[in-house]
Amino acid sequence: MINVAVMGYGTVGSGVVEVLEKNKDVIAKRVGEEVCVKYVLDLRDFPGDPVQEKVVHDFEIVVNDSEVAIVVETMGGIEPAYTFVKRSLLAGKSVATSNKALVEKRGTELLAIAREKNLNFLFEASVGGGIPILRPLKTSLTADVIEEIGGILNGTTNYMLTKMYDKGVDYDIVLKEAQDKGYAERNPEADVEGYDTGRKIAILCSLVTGKKVDFEDIYTEGITKVSKEDMAYARSLGMHVKLLASAKRHGDKMCVMVAPVMMGREHPLYAVDDVFNAVFVRGNMLGDAMFYGSGAGKLPTASAVVADVVEAAKNPSISMMGAWSEEKEELLPPDAISRRFFVRMPGDAREKLPAVKESFGSVTLVEVEGLDGEFGFLSEEMTEGEYAKCAERFPEILHRLRIEG
Amino acid sequence: MINVAVMGYGTVGSGVVEVLEKNKDVIAKRVGEEVCVKYVLDLRDFPGDPVQEKVVHDFEIVVNDSEVAIVVETMGGIEPAYTFVKRSLLAGKSVATSNKALVEKRGTELLAIAREKNLNFLFEASVGGGIPILRPLKTSLTADVIEEIGGILNGTTNYMLTKMYDKGVDYDIVLKEAQDKGYAERNPEADVEGYDTGRKIAILCSLVTGKKVDFEDIYTEGITKVSKEDMAYARSLGMHVKLLASAKRHGDKMCVMVAPVMMGREHPLYAVDDVFNAVFVRGNMLGDAMFYGSGAGKLPTASAVVADVVEAAKNPSISMMGAWSEEKEELLPPDAISRRFFVRMPGDAREKLPAVKESFGSVTLVEVEGLDGEFGFLSEEMTEGEYAKCAERFPEILHRLRIEG
Repeated sequence: MINVAVMGYGTVGSGVVEVLEKNKDVIAKRVGEEVCVKYVLDLRDFPGDPVQEKVVHDFEIVVNDSEVAIVVETMGGIEPAYTFVKRSLLAGKSVATSNKALVEKRGTELLAIAREKNLNFLFEASVGGGIPILRPLKTSLTADVIEEIGGILNGTTNYMLTKMYDKGVDYDIVLKEAQDKGYAERNPEADVEGYDTGRKIAILCSLVTGKKVDFEDIYTEGITKVSKEDMAYARSLGMHVKLLASAKRHGDKMCVMVAPVMMGREHPLYAVDDVFNAVFVRGNMLGDAMFYGSGAGKLPTASAVVADVVEAAKNPSISMMGAWSEEKEELLPPDAISRRFFVRMPGDAREKLPAVKESFGSVTLVEVEGLDGEFGFLSEEMTEGEYAKCAERFPEILHRLRIEG
Repeated sequence: MINVAVMGYGTVGSGVVEVLEKNKDVIAKRVGEEVCVKYVLDLRDFPGDPVQEKVVHDFEIVVNDSEVAIVVETMGGIEPAYTFVKRSLLAGKSVATSNKALVEKRGTELLAIAREKNLNFLFEASVGGGIPILRPLKTSLTADVIEEIGGILNGTTNYMLTKMYDKGVDYDIVLKEAQDKGYAERNPEADVEGYDTGRKIAILCSLVTGKKVDFEDIYTEGITKVSKEDMAYARSLGMHVKLLASAKRHGDKMCVMVAPVMMGREHPLYAVDDVFNAVFVRGNMLGDAMFYGSGAGKLPTASAVVADVVEAAKNPSISMMGAWSEEKEELLPPDAISRRFFVRMPGDAREKLPAVKESFGSVTLVEVEGLDGEFGFLSEEMTEGEYAKCAERFPEILHRLRIEG
């Protein structure tokens, strides 16, 4: 029998207990022995919940019990998660976590400890929720140079953008609806400013490069400035607006960015709607691949955590994720990337286009019925730097979105 | 240095040599040592090709060279592939193959030998070409009871159906075009009759159940009867027609079927067009997930084979795929599944609907402008058996398609 301690009995933690209970027979068959929850560490009590008899409030009980082989961390945040995970590893226990902030901030050190102690430190659920991507990246996409990795990594903002697009309503209204449904937090900053997405692409990019990628080094633009007018132009172009995380290889460096982009029907992420997530990978031999599923939610996320528990239980003394070193990966600034831009401009197209063309060169006019007093245009391919220079002459620009693919 | 022998220098085999050569640096880094092609076994010579100096015509050279640790089988067909693979395993060499016919027909025995000898017998490329699905299924989707697995597993037929749908042209014309482009073989039977798809779903289903699933036991219907008229109805319903492989759990049994189906926009496979493949998985905790990519093609398929080589090289004495036992899985006949049906009927809707409703109960009429002298209707949910009984009274039915999702 393999004993597990679950730290944090919130949404994901209670999901982990539920998955281990409901699927205990198939899990026992796959592992070769039973996997049982011995402790649930939480500050709260849960009277009436069958888990109550396993609840402990003191981490020392968990860390000092040599029968506990695997610790699940589903508390979230950096502290005390970091201290508890580190001490668990040092005490010889493998750890599975869903905590992207912890992995992004302290993953390098925790991976090094796990390697040193020949233990598992696994975090499949930290990126893409239930979507299996980290292990496939390390064990299946091994014949390729990864040219690009990214995707739609945040369910809250994808839900909001889908609603704005489908219903033509504005950001504030959709945010309130998402909050009422419990999809968005009261303080939605981490989601809508792209920070959550940024942490996830930092983790993916660290795995791909084998070196530490810092979230702070990533250019991150959220969705707060995306308007129903942008959506109207996108619809008329047959495109979608998606919050895209993208890491693209240029020679031996990666260029990483989080930003809302317009993408056409031919892009594999075009049809990824609502709270779904998808990770896109381009290999130099494989070509394009995509992994799609529930990026969040209690049971899908718990399913990914428990799959890590199964992996750790089957391979107790193998450090599965020789994931990345302490060396820091230098990123290429996003200026390097050439792409087309969509620009919204106030005024009359006929009057202004000559000046626009003088600055931007050839452009494609986009007009939408019902949107008076403004027009849109698509530029040809240019770098971010070239765009900034062209746009300098037009401080009145209402919004610009990047075109992807 | 790890020495590999590639058996069969056709499309995939030459791709394997190319991937190992082009990406040798990253592969060496991931494996921990260099991976080199020592022999290419083929009946032909390739004068002028740098591989020529490695070409051998005699399998005995490969099997008797103790320096060869891993054998790649990309010959296709059952013989001599089966004999060569078996003898390679018995000689202590791990094997990676892209040969779905071999895996479906002889996989059980070859897996048992690999297990016995503590070697790897890997076949990621046999299903979904470049899409990583078999290893994720065995190492990532381990917390779930798999309720359903399937997908679009054949690029040729998906290309043909996409073209028929987009351009409104008939089967024969599209088949000829696919043959001219080299997507379809001169004898297209294995693709268009669904046999290729059937072998792949048999492999997936064997992995999911842990028991041997025989291709011969699977109900298989190809695309030869799908017409441009069917496509016109599908378009008017906002649906697509796809050749779907599907294995669904009913209690402790699986119901497996290959057939063209109509599916709506909300189905994750709806947007999988052209030669792309996608595998769909539904877990009881995870919910829906999908793996999308190039299901065929020289380099994507070779990428999956080489990923197996990397896995075998990293884990020389672990049988990674304790995949399925010799016990046979009893399948549930497809009659068990309830679904809606789309039916095309000659004649006038107004005249015939009363009789249709008397037999089928409530139906939804579907009429398409330009299709005179016939009409379509959607039934309510019914089992295959119930459908057959209802349809008995109408021998004039032109075609029926199942509705999925």
